[in-house]
Amino acid sequence: MTGIDDLPIRDELRGKSPYGAPQLEVPVRLNTNENPYPLPEPLVARIAERVTEAARNLNRYPDRDAVELRTELARYLSRTAGLEVGVAQVWAANGSNEVLQQLLQTFGGPGRTAIGFEPSYSMHALISRGTGTGWISGPRNDDFTIDVDAARRAIAEHRPDVVFITSPNNPTGTAVAAETVLALYEAAQAARADAAGALVVVDEAYGEFSHRPSLLPLIEGRPRMVLSRTMSKAFGAAGLRLGYLAADPAVVDAVQLVRLPYHLSAVTQATALAALEHTDTLLGYVEALKAERDRLVSELRTLGCEVTDSDANFVQFGRFEDAHAAWQSLLDRGVLVRDNGVPGRLRVTAGTPAENDAFLDAVRELMKEKSA
Amino acid sequence: MTGIDDLPIRDELRGKSPYGAPQLEVPVRLNTNENPYPLPEPLVARIAERVTEAARNLNRYPDRDAVELRTELARYLSRTAGLEVGVAQVWAANGSNEVLQQLLQTFGGPGRTAIGFEPSYSMHALISRGTGTGWISGPRNDDFTIDVDAARRAIAEHRPDVVFITSPNNPTGTAVAAETVLALYEAAQAARADAAGALVVVDEAYGEFSHRPSLLPLIEGRPRMVLSRTMSKAFGAAGLRLGYLAADPAVVDAVQLVRLPYHLSAVTQATALAALEHTDTLLGYVEALKAERDRLVSELRTLGCEVTDSDANFVQFGRFEDAHAAWQSLLDRGVLVRDNGVPGRLRVTAGTPAENDAFLDAVRELMKEKSA
Repeated sequence: MTGIDDLPIRDELRGKSPYGAPQLEVPVRLNTNENPYPLPEPLVARIAERVTEAARNLNRYPDRDAVELRTELARYLSRTAGLEVGVAQVWAANGSNEVLQQLLQTFGGPGRTAIGFEPSYSMHALISRGTGTGWISGPRNDDFTIDVDAARRAIAEHRPDVVFITSPNNPTGTAVAAETVLALYEAAQAARADAAGALVVVDEAYGEFSHRPSLLPLIEGRPRMVLSRTMSKAFGAAGLRLGYLAADPAVVDAVQLVRLPYHLSAVTQATALAALEHTDTLLGYVEALKAERDRLVSELRTLGCEVTDSDANFVQFGRFEDAHAAWQSLLDRGVLVRDNGVPGRLRVTAGTPAENDAFLDAVRELMKEKSA
Repeated sequence: MTGIDDLPIRDELRGKSPYGAPQLEVPVRLNTNENPYPLPEPLVARIAERVTEAARNLNRYPDRDAVELRTELARYLSRTAGLEVGVAQVWAANGSNEVLQQLLQTFGGPGRTAIGFEPSYSMHALISRGTGTGWISGPRNDDFTIDVDAARRAIAEHRPDVVFITSPNNPTGTAVAAETVLALYEAAQAARADAAGALVVVDEAYGEFSHRPSLLPLIEGRPRMVLSRTMSKAFGAAGLRLGYLAADPAVVDAVQLVRLPYHLSAVTQATALAALEHTDTLLGYVEALKAERDRLVSELRTLGCEVTDSDANFVQFGRFEDAHAAWQSLLDRGVLVRDNGVPGRLRVTAGTPAENDAFLDAVRELMKEKSA
């Protein structure tokens, strides 16, 4: 039988495994930051309507530039994120992963580098590798906030072409202050003043769950600043794979040089448009989840856990001598959380109140065992 | 205002334009090889049903490995393409463009090269560029068939990591003989015998329209041979963006090292599964289109055109002293065809009988003018 290693794959892929959380059948699944609330039935019906319309024209290529969808995404951002943006400033793709891949194909790639401050969203490093972009692992403080001085020094030393800032950060949960983003933006431009500057990508996948306002207004007057977002979490649509960015129109023009033509299917565009019609209902679920998230933080602290401040729909907690053993012990109690490899910590997604209760019960038992 | 050139984009992207045919509002659009037959209403209804089901679970990530869809694609190939293949041999992505991109990220990339025999599907070169893979333009005979000896010499000289063979070839239309594919496969392996061989990708996007049987059986016993397909043409689903490949299971394992996790949305998977339930009806349209394609070839020849043999749902015709002027002249008569830049030639998609009549009338007038 032929194995991967018998094939002429790239050397840097040898011995690697595909990215992805284990998909296990467990009563309480709180491991992938999914929104626990199914879409409301009126929205499901509206999706069926919109997709039926799209299916009648499915023999034709979709709108290559997804103009209607980008217009509605721009309207949503203008309404909720503190800056009036237009369709020319918005771009959409199959999940924010594809948005980031397009950005790295345009602004990163062979002979270039990207930096992120780790632990952070691990796909930043993986998509960098997948696009031939060198990856630089930047530092964080012990409390998982960004160490601004150390970050500035790393930027000055490595002169990266692309800087990733995840806010709220995944898997640790805390949002980044606007001043920190601005300090790193300036450092990145200064470090590459001889070239055309550096691209700073603020990954705000969990932005709607934050205690802080969106960082979107920072793109104004800063053509090298990009904000990326997703409909997976706040819109309860992880299955839809719809990510988007907001930036200067020149950035939107630039990614069109590398995007695969007709990358966004007509059914994806139709479904996303239906979901955007139901924004208010879906943002109501976000409020409920924020309350549950705050409850998780406070109850976990009461149980004696060390908990990282969370602005997301998940909470990082510990500290465990052996995080993987703690993960297994929760799994044995029917609760699947995520072991992201952060020493001593685990990450739990805010689920429904009943799921969160089940999780807290399991942690309570775990902490008893631990202190016994 | 900031322009693309003020941004730190990659040097090789400077001055480039995005790929894509003009999307013009014209009575008869025969320029992008779309299937002219809308999906039948029972299939539209089934898509709505399947998508409704998927939408009820849209808050969850889709099946990352698309197992049900790959199983049905494998069943379709086994039924129609002359080789029994299993789910482990099939992979799917957002359009065959994404399939090819994943193959190039795995087997091409920085420091590696890919060869194609041009004119051919221009995305092969563009996706190579987008993945940092060096592109080698191989030769063809004057009748647009592959010159096997010249191709072998080019392979021996350049030692490419990836070889593209498009059959039926786009935009010229002719299918490639199995012996030619085998000769190039062997040449490619011999040229890279010191490494782990080379990957040979047979792009059979238009395979269902061919007078020849599918080249699928060639993958048997050849782990470096990949066949790529799409649902855009034969399944009348250009708007769906569903491409797939069949190959040794090791190739399927390998592309999973670079695929973005959850790349295929739940609505895409649901829609494709619905379409596969209606395979027989859709293949009936393919038969109708093949007859129309044959009619176009024969009537264009009667009108005095030079026509390349076609195994696809389109026909390349000429010869024009100024192909672009001929393209404009047809457009002025309300018929949009494609100018692919092949000197003296244009490409027309087989449309409905009425659309093809309108096209033939326009060519008749054009040929009269030409000879006047």
